[in-house]
Amino acid sequence: MKKILMCVPNISEGKDLDAVELVVDEVRQISGVTLLDYSWDQNHNRSVLTYLGDPQSVIEATKNMAAKALELIDMRNHQGSHPRIGAVDVVPFVPVRNMNIDETVAIAHQVGRFLGEQGVHVYYYAQASDKPERTTPSSVRKGQYEGLKDRLKDPTWYPDKGPTEFNPRAGATALGVRMPLIAFNVNLHTTDVSIAEQIAKAVRRISGGYQFVRAMGLSLEGQDLAQVSMDLDNYIKTPIHRVLETVRCEAARYGVSVAGCEFIGPVPLAALEECIRFYVQAHDFSVDQVIENSLLSLID
Amino acid sequence: MKKILMCVPNISEGKDLDAVELVVDEVRQISGVTLLDYSWDQNHNRSVLTYLGDPQSVIEATKNMAAKALELIDMRNHQGSHPRIGAVDVVPFVPVRNMNIDETVAIAHQVGRFLGEQGVHVYYYAQASDKPERTTPSSVRKGQYEGLKDRLKDPTWYPDKGPTEFNPRAGATALGVRMPLIAFNVNLHTTDVSIAEQIAKAVRRISGGYQFVRAMGLSLEGQDLAQVSMDLDNYIKTPIHRVLETVRCEAARYGVSVAGCEFIGPVPLAALEECIRFYVQAHDFSVDQVIENSLLSLID
Repeated sequence: MKKILMCVPNISEGKDLDAVELVVDEVRQISGVTLLDYSWDQNHNRSVLTYLGDPQSVIEATKNMAAKALELIDMRNHQGSHPRIGAVDVVPFVPVRNMNIDETVAIAHQVGRFLGEQGVHVYYYAQASDKPERTTPSSVRKGQYEGLKDRLKDPTWYPDKGPTEFNPRAGATALGVRMPLIAFNVNLHTTDVSIAEQIAKAVRRISGGYQFVRAMGLSLEGQDLAQVSMDLDNYIKTPIHRVLETVRCEAARYGVSVAGCEFIGPVPLAALEECIRFYVQAHDFSVDQVIENSLLSLID
Repeated sequence: MKKILMCVPNISEGKDLDAVELVVDEVRQISGVTLLDYSWDQNHNRSVLTYLGDPQSVIEATKNMAAKALELIDMRNHQGSHPRIGAVDVVPFVPVRNMNIDETVAIAHQVGRFLGEQGVHVYYYAQASDKPERTTPSSVRKGQYEGLKDRLKDPTWYPDKGPTEFNPRAGATALGVRMPLIAFNVNLHTTDVSIAEQIAKAVRRISGGYQFVRAMGLSLEGQDLAQVSMDLDNYIKTPIHRVLETVRCEAARYGVSVAGCEFIGPVPLAALEECIRFYVQAHDFSVDQVIENSLLSLID
């Protein structure tokens, strides 16, 4: 089964669209990579690229993309409303298919070494980091670009790769590995938003729920429904069905039923595999049995 | 979304492997087609090819494959243990992805005209036929090759395409359109096989159950389980979840629970889509959201 790696870098340029195109071109030029999407925001002065492909091609595309961004972006001139710490601000690697976290971390570290050699201050986050508190890009980005020079004097903030002496042009990069995120909402037959809020508290990590669930309750205006809106950050360790059944169970204590659910955006086939295994009780069901999936393996 | 058509022709040659390879080569030579599998059986004196791709490429591969089989196979010399009626014995087209039955039938009829022009007696079956009794290749194959000459004198057995005068070299072809078949078994916590048999009767078409379910009950030796073994012939009109929930419900009347289920062989993503919609109550969930599926669309 073909390995597929995704990368979703955020670069600190969203105004000079010629520059953005030149950076995106570096991805386009790698034949093993598919550019799924890219977008820019002039207020944020920031662009987000999404591409995937075989790991070696994604590594190559990411190195070339980053090198071009470092060539074109000077952080000393950067202004924008979104928090940022460097020209190649965030580089998350996402194992999409037939890859585990460990091999993805090895790839992230390989790209980290490359960026370090280019003079970038590289901070690892999430699974790429051995520091448990560095869970997100924002945990790395504290104090932003403007605070970076002073922070580099603090040994606890020495970069994982790259110089300890401030590089004012490039700034730093938050480089991480994360699972594909699944945006999953459960709509409840109630207009009482506090029920959705209670359930959100029951399932989310920060208030004692599942480790890889972020959740909030909100009301769906004009629909007589309340919603538990969730991000599932690791569908293997905290699978969809377990979260849904917990929501259902907690809703039942209020006499409230589930009206429907929705996935917002992409869902990896592997996450559905576990749903099928649970609900259909097909214990040995494998994504390898899915015709479309075997087609993908054959297109190599 | 890319259209994917599958074809699973059975040809009446399984002894002369050079000939089989020459026939298979015709499929290999079409660039838009992926040969998933081929196998031969010397006792049956028969080979089965499985390939898929974009519809135009599959049409081309099928025409070339059939022409080569007609060139190499002489039915007057054919002996084998499997029922057969012609050199290109059965040609089922299976819509795999983003295709409906009507457009698949149009393709089957296009290939039927081609075979008719080559002098083959073509009989349509399943969705390709307007005769409701011609549901399977075997309904077309009654009396086999040996009975074909006489049968062609009966106006009710005039072929859909091709000559009414007997072609002894080529014989006839059963040419049909069918949905991908899903082999689905439900294992029950009972050693009483009669319970599995009763449930099989409850769900299968011939005894009053679901239109597109074939089923039988059997015992799983050494596992203290009985099994309802099923073929689901149309997962859109008779979806997996409905059959499973009916089995579950019927089993409960005997105090028997479902130990587990299994899919044997390939499953189309669209069949899982409906499972997810039902069990996760994700009413609007679409295969388009599956990352692997969008990858497939992008590889064009």
